[in-house]
Amino acid sequence: MGSLKNRVKLQSEYNEFIIIADMQALTDNYDNPEKVRNNVLEVALDNLSVGLDPKKSTIFVQSLIPEIAELTMYYLNLVTVSKLERNPTVKEEIKQKNFDRNVPAGFLTYPVSQAADITIFKADLVPVGEDQLPMIEQTNEIVNRFNRIYKSKVLKEVKPLISDFARLPGTDGKAKMSKSLGNTIYLSDKPDEITKKVMKMFTDPGHIKAEDPGKVKGNPVFTYLDAFDIDKKELDKIKKQYEKGGLGDVVVKKRLNEVLQEFLKPIREKRENLEKNKDEVIKIINKGTAKARETAAITLKEVKEAMKIEYFK
Amino acid sequence: MGSLKNRVKLQSEYNEFIIIADMQALTDNYDNPEKVRNNVLEVALDNLSVGLDPKKSTIFVQSLIPEIAELTMYYLNLVTVSKLERNPTVKEEIKQKNFDRNVPAGFLTYPVSQAADITIFKADLVPVGEDQLPMIEQTNEIVNRFNRIYKSKVLKEVKPLISDFARLPGTDGKAKMSKSLGNTIYLSDKPDEITKKVMKMFTDPGHIKAEDPGKVKGNPVFTYLDAFDIDKKELDKIKKQYEKGGLGDVVVKKRLNEVLQEFLKPIREKRENLEKNKDEVIKIINKGTAKARETAAITLKEVKEAMKIEYFK
Repeated sequence: MGSLKNRVKLQSEYNEFIIIADMQALTDNYDNPEKVRNNVLEVALDNLSVGLDPKKSTIFVQSLIPEIAELTMYYLNLVTVSKLERNPTVKEEIKQKNFDRNVPAGFLTYPVSQAADITIFKADLVPVGEDQLPMIEQTNEIVNRFNRIYKSKVLKEVKPLISDFARLPGTDGKAKMSKSLGNTIYLSDKPDEITKKVMKMFTDPGHIKAEDPGKVKGNPVFTYLDAFDIDKKELDKIKKQYEKGGLGDVVVKKRLNEVLQEFLKPIREKRENLEKNKDEVIKIINKGTAKARETAAITLKEVKEAMKIEYFK
Repeated sequence: MGSLKNRVKLQSEYNEFIIIADMQALTDNYDNPEKVRNNVLEVALDNLSVGLDPKKSTIFVQSLIPEIAELTMYYLNLVTVSKLERNPTVKEEIKQKNFDRNVPAGFLTYPVSQAADITIFKADLVPVGEDQLPMIEQTNEIVNRFNRIYKSKVLKEVKPLISDFARLPGTDGKAKMSKSLGNTIYLSDKPDEITKKVMKMFTDPGHIKAEDPGKVKGNPVFTYLDAFDIDKKELDKIKKQYEKGGLGDVVVKKRLNEVLQEFLKPIREKRENLEKNKDEVIKIINKGTAKARETAAITLKEVKEAMKIEYFK
């Protein structure tokens, strides 16, 4: 949500590129390419339904820009294996995914591929979550190393834009939403699905009876309310009451349900509309990919010129 | 020499592809791309001057086939980091190059890129030295893993063709020739350079006076004679005499010089001729690259179809 929100905001100020990172998705889903394939359209639909305007933003598919793969190959020489092994985000993900010693080389090196994604469009700004900051650092390290070794000014450093919107926990309170855990609310969820998921949400496990005092911090229902409830004044009152005791979870959940229904209704309707016009969405993706490829080809040419490996031209 | 000899022999029986592996050269020369750039033409000249016929063989530049980079990205997901770290050839090279913990990711993963070089042309046979056998094994492992995971028959296993021609040692007796050690005889060397290098060659360090018995085994002069002297009967006699004692190094070196001069003369002349027609050579490379790219594009398309990531077509 945080990243999507920033994208919508930024599209009027910047020449925005939205990547559908299917090749990166394959680094830990190589044995399930159909999942990756199906998600390409879903990700495009998500972006468009929250308000990404294809007239302003360029939505493209990573695997359809071979220049990114080429650039990645050149960058791989500028990063050591041990540096990649020390990347905190990758380290954490390797642990989570139980890769142990069986990390695919494509997974360990995905920050290098990400550096290519970013720099091939000479990005100024990348909207990221806090956990993605090591990727921006790695990108800038490659940028500086490249410019120094090849005495070039082709690549430029990028700045992270950290969302003020905290990462939403799962409805079960787990740090990350995940399809397999069933703790996710989707932009495409129908009203009754939303209600069902909200009413089953985890709250403060110590808050058993309505009259008990409850915790707001770390309580997923309140994290969601913080994110979506526009009436901050009323929300503050509710929080105080909850903490004091005398407010049942059901009341709070009903409020969240209302807020979410209102927030998600126009998004879902737009999404349903787009789903009926998939050919139109595919056209948008193809057009965006063609445009992105033009920019990528220019940067790759400049990179090869800086390296003096543009042959026979 | 062994590999070049096999290439010339095979070009009449096979549809042969000759790679000028500039991207691989960059994995340990990323800070010296000009060296790589200059060698592209030199490698082409070497191949053509020993008898590679561009009408039969396709000579192409690796970096000009982006499909290889793309295929490498997909293969990187099918190989674990620890498997690459156990590759005996890479392990040995990391030691030789004193990379220690600073191995560039591009260097550690170059066997994956090589698997893409080989399989994108659906090669049956790769002429290699003994030390390159682990690369063929790694290639076949990727082939089998790909076909199994994606339930495909697109990729096929490759067989190594090991040269019966032993790897030539340096003129100083060191295992490998190297420009920086100055222990190399080049296909482009002028007659007096060849003579000078041969007369300065290392022999048996225990063979001090002509009447002393000398060792033939491990004696670089005899290794070269074994490789280039056609008159094996006469060579056997000389060897016996050398081992018995009574044959000076100068006599043996003079024989090697004659043999090498005769062997290298037509190659050098052809090379000089080609050097005067660089535009012609560039045309050959460009034509070969265009042809190679057509084949590569077909395989990549089949690979993406097997992975079901051919979108929106």
